[in-house]
Amino acid sequence: MTDSAARAIDVRAADVRAAEVHATGVCATDIGVGDVHDVRLSQLHGSLADPAMASMNFLNEVAIRFPNAISFAAGRPSEEFLDFAEVHRYVDVFIDHLRRERGMTEAEAKRTVLQYGRTKGIIHELVARHLEVDEGISVSSESLVITVGCQEAMFLVLRALRTGPQDIVLAISPTYVGLTGAARLVDLPVRPVRGGERGIDFDDLGAQIAEARAAGLRPRALYLVPDVANPTGISLDLEARRELLRVAEAEDLLLLEDNAYGVFAGEGRLPSLKSLDTGRRVVRLGSFAKTVLPGARVGYAVADQRVVDESGGTSLLADHLSTIKSMLTVNTSPWAQAVVGGALVEHGYSLPAANRREIDVYQRNLRLILEGLARRFPSDPAGPVISWNTPTGGFFLTLTVPFRADDELLEYSAKEHGVLWTPMSHFYGGDGGYEQIRLSLSQLTPDTIDVGLDRLASLVRECAAAR
Amino acid sequence: MTDSAARAIDVRAADVRAAEVHATGVCATDIGVGDVHDVRLSQLHGSLADPAMASMNFLNEVAIRFPNAISFAAGRPSEEFLDFAEVHRYVDVFIDHLRRERGMTEAEAKRTVLQYGRTKGIIHELVARHLEVDEGISVSSESLVITVGCQEAMFLVLRALRTGPQDIVLAISPTYVGLTGAARLVDLPVRPVRGGERGIDFDDLGAQIAEARAAGLRPRALYLVPDVANPTGISLDLEARRELLRVAEAEDLLLLEDNAYGVFAGEGRLPSLKSLDTGRRVVRLGSFAKTVLPGARVGYAVADQRVVDESGGTSLLADHLSTIKSMLTVNTSPWAQAVVGGALVEHGYSLPAANRREIDVYQRNLRLILEGLARRFPSDPAGPVISWNTPTGGFFLTLTVPFRADDELLEYSAKEHGVLWTPMSHFYGGDGGYEQIRLSLSQLTPDTIDVGLDRLASLVRECAAAR
Repeated sequence: MTDSAARAIDVRAADVRAAEVHATGVCATDIGVGDVHDVRLSQLHGSLADPAMASMNFLNEVAIRFPNAISFAAGRPSEEFLDFAEVHRYVDVFIDHLRRERGMTEAEAKRTVLQYGRTKGIIHELVARHLEVDEGISVSSESLVITVGCQEAMFLVLRALRTGPQDIVLAISPTYVGLTGAARLVDLPVRPVRGGERGIDFDDLGAQIAEARAAGLRPRALYLVPDVANPTGISLDLEARRELLRVAEAEDLLLLEDNAYGVFAGEGRLPSLKSLDTGRRVVRLGSFAKTVLPGARVGYAVADQRVVDESGGTSLLADHLSTIKSMLTVNTSPWAQAVVGGALVEHGYSLPAANRREIDVYQRNLRLILEGLARRFPSDPAGPVISWNTPTGGFFLTLTVPFRADDELLEYSAKEHGVLWTPMSHFYGGDGGYEQIRLSLSQLTPDTIDVGLDRLASLVRECAAAR
Repeated sequence: MTDSAARAIDVRAADVRAAEVHATGVCATDIGVGDVHDVRLSQLHGSLADPAMASMNFLNEVAIRFPNAISFAAGRPSEEFLDFAEVHRYVDVFIDHLRRERGMTEAEAKRTVLQYGRTKGIIHELVARHLEVDEGISVSSESLVITVGCQEAMFLVLRALRTGPQDIVLAISPTYVGLTGAARLVDLPVRPVRGGERGIDFDDLGAQIAEARAAGLRPRALYLVPDVANPTGISLDLEARRELLRVAEAEDLLLLEDNAYGVFAGEGRLPSLKSLDTGRRVVRLGSFAKTVLPGARVGYAVADQRVVDESGGTSLLADHLSTIKSMLTVNTSPWAQAVVGGALVEHGYSLPAANRREIDVYQRNLRLILEGLARRFPSDPAGPVISWNTPTGGFFLTLTVPFRADDELLEYSAKEHGVLWTPMSHFYGGDGGYEQIRLSLSQLTPDTIDVGLDRLASLVRECAAAR
C-alpha cells in the first residue's frame, strides 16, 4: 500500500496530489535489484495485507488518474481562508498568553513552545475552557490528552482497551475508516452495529452485544460520531443520545464519541454525548483539523474515567493514555499546539466564533447540493428511484441509488462522466452499502457543485436506464 | 503512570516541570466520587502495569521533589539558543523554498504547509539531501517516512515486524527506554545483547540469536545506537560496524540504526551503519529534536528495503510504514516539518553547520566533566575505585562506582547531596547495571558542572567509605 492510505475517501487526510504519483508508481529503478535484502509481505503485520487497504489505495489511484474530475470524494476542509500570516499570528498570540496570563518569563515561554514538552500537552487548560464555553462540558484539564490529531487519540484508547483476543470494539456502521484502521493496528476486532436512518439501531446494538458475549468475547466500547457523522451526515436525536448512555451503563460499555464535525452541525445542534455524561461513560475524541488548522495535526481525548489498581490506588484514564503516548510520539509538537492555543485565545475559546466564514461556506454548499439534487431528481414515478438524506450540516451526505455503486462504477464515473464520489461500501468493511454513495461538500464551490451534479445526474440516468 | 513517562531519564522527552506536579498528584477532588464508571487497571493493556513504567515514574517524581538539585539526569538539548524569531524564520525560508525552488503557486504552498499532507511527509527530499551531504548516504527520497519524532519511527518499524508471538527484537544493552516502550506497545519481546565496553559483544549476539531460535523464536532485527549512544556514550569502531553488517546478512536480521547524536560525536566521527549498508540491511531511525528543534517533534525512518507480496509484486518498506502511520497519526504536522525544512535549506542541508554553537557547548561540557572527574578522583590505590568512559561527544557518559547506585540512592543523593543522575539499571530493564550511573551533560553550564561534580564526589566518598 502506498502513501495516504485510505485518504481519498477520508476527510481526515490529504487528497492525493500529483506529487504523490511517484510514491504510488514505485518503479524498478527506485527499488534496485541485486544482492539486497527483501522482506516478504507475509512477514509483516497482518494489517498491511488487509484487503480493505488495497481497496482504499484504489480510491487514491482513481483520484490521481483523473485529476480533472470534479470531486465529491475529497473531504478535506476548505482552503479558501488558509493564511500564513494568521498562523504565525496565532503562535504569537499563544506566546503572549503565556507571558501575560500565565506570568511566564521569556525563558519559560521558550521552553514551553520550543523544547520537549509535557506528554499530555500544553494547551489542555485552553481546550478544557473551550469545551466549557462551546458545549457546557466541565472536566478537569488533567482529564485531557492533547494528541497528534484525533487519529492518535483513537489509537491510544484502543491500545489501552485491548488486553487480549477476547476484547472487541463495537462501531456504528457505516464506520469512519480511521477507527477501523487504528483497531487493526492493535489486532482489535471491530463489530459493526447497524446505524440505519436514525443513526443507531438499539435492537441491533443489543443483539451484537449478546452475540459477542455468547461467543466469549468482551465488548469494551462503542464508537460513534453522534453529530453529522462521517460518512453518513446523520445526527442522533436527543432521545437516542440519552438511551445510549443508559445502555452503556447497563452493558458496562465505554462510549467513544468522535465529534469532529459538531461545530458545523448547523442550527439546533444537540448536546454532545460528553455533555450529557454524568457517569463517566464517555471518552470524547476531538480534532482541531477542521476548526483551526489541518496542518497543525492537533486533536485530543477527554478521558476522565477513574482507573483502579490492585491495591485500590486510583488514577485517571487520561494518565494511562499519556503513558502510551510517551512510547508512541512522546508529546504533540508544542509549536503546532501553539497554533491551536492562539486561535482559542483569539476567539474567546469558541470554535463557532473562529469558524463563522467556514460555517457559511459549508452550509451554503449543503444547501446548493440539496437544492441541486431536488432539481435534477424531482419526485417522478417514471424516473430513477434515487434518494438522499438531509443532514443539518457537516461535510457529508448519503445518496441512495437503484444500482450497484462500487469501485468499478467509480472508475467508470471518473473516466466517462468526470465526477468522483465515494462508494459507501468502503465504510461497511466491504460488506454492504453497495447502493449508497458518500458525497462530500467541503471543498466545492457553487460552480463545481453545479457542473458536478450535472455529471452525477448523467451517470445516474445512464445506470438506471441500463438496469 | 502519569505524564511524561520515563522522561526524567530520557533525553527524548521533557524534564518534568513544576507545572506537572498536579498531573502526578491527582487527588480525590480531581477524580470525583459517586456512581461513576471505574476501570480496573487489569482490564487495560499490559504495558500499563509494567513495573518498568512505575520505576520511570519514580525518577520523574524525584526530579519534581528536588527542583534545586543539580541535574546530571536531564538529557534535553541545550536551551541556550532557543529563539522564537528563528523558528518563525525557518518556516518562512521553507515557504520561500517551495515558491522559488519548487515553483509552487501561493495556493500550492499554502496547501503544502497548512492543509492535510502527504503521509510520508513534505520534507523528504530535503532530508534525503541532508543524508547525502552529511553522511554520504544515497537513498531515494521515496524511502523516507517523516515521523512524529524518532519515537514514532521506532513504533512503525516494530509494528510492521511483529506478526505474532514468535517474533522478537534484539537490542544492545543497556538500551534506550523508548525502544523498550514502543516494543511493549506491540507486545514484542526485547532480548538484550551485551554491549560491554566496545559497544557490542559479538559472542553474546550469536548466542542470543541461537538461543532464541532454539526456543522457536524469530529474531527480526537488532536495535542499536552506533554513535555516542544513549545511555552509555559509547561509539562502535569501524570494524565492529562492518562485522555487524556481515552478521545481519548471515543471520537474516535487519539493523535498526538510531543515530540521534551522530552530529555531536566529535572529531573523527565514523561512517554510519546506513552509509556502509550495501545490502539494504539497515533501517535508519533519525531525529531532528537535538539538531533543529525539540518542539517540532520531527524525525524520520529510512526504509529502502524491498517488500515482495505473494504475487511477486514489490513495494518499499517505507510505503508499508506509511500505511501504518496513516492509521496512527495520518501525517506529521507540515507546519512543524516546515521548521526543519527551513533549517536544512538555510544551512545548506548540513546539520553540523546548523549546530556549530551547540557542538561547542556540548564538547566543552564533556571536557569539563572529564577534567572535573579526573581532578576529583585521581588514580589513588587508597581512594574509592571509580571509573568512567571517555566518549568522543554526545550527551552522555557512564560512571562506574563501587556500590549499588539504585533508585534508593538516587533519592538520598537528591535529598542529602543536591545532585541528580540516572541509575543505569533502568536501561537494563531492571536486570543489571546496578553499579553504573548515566551522566547527562547537555543542559549544564561550567558553574553547575563544577558544583554538581563536587556534590557527586561527596556522595561517592560517603558511599565508598560506608562499604
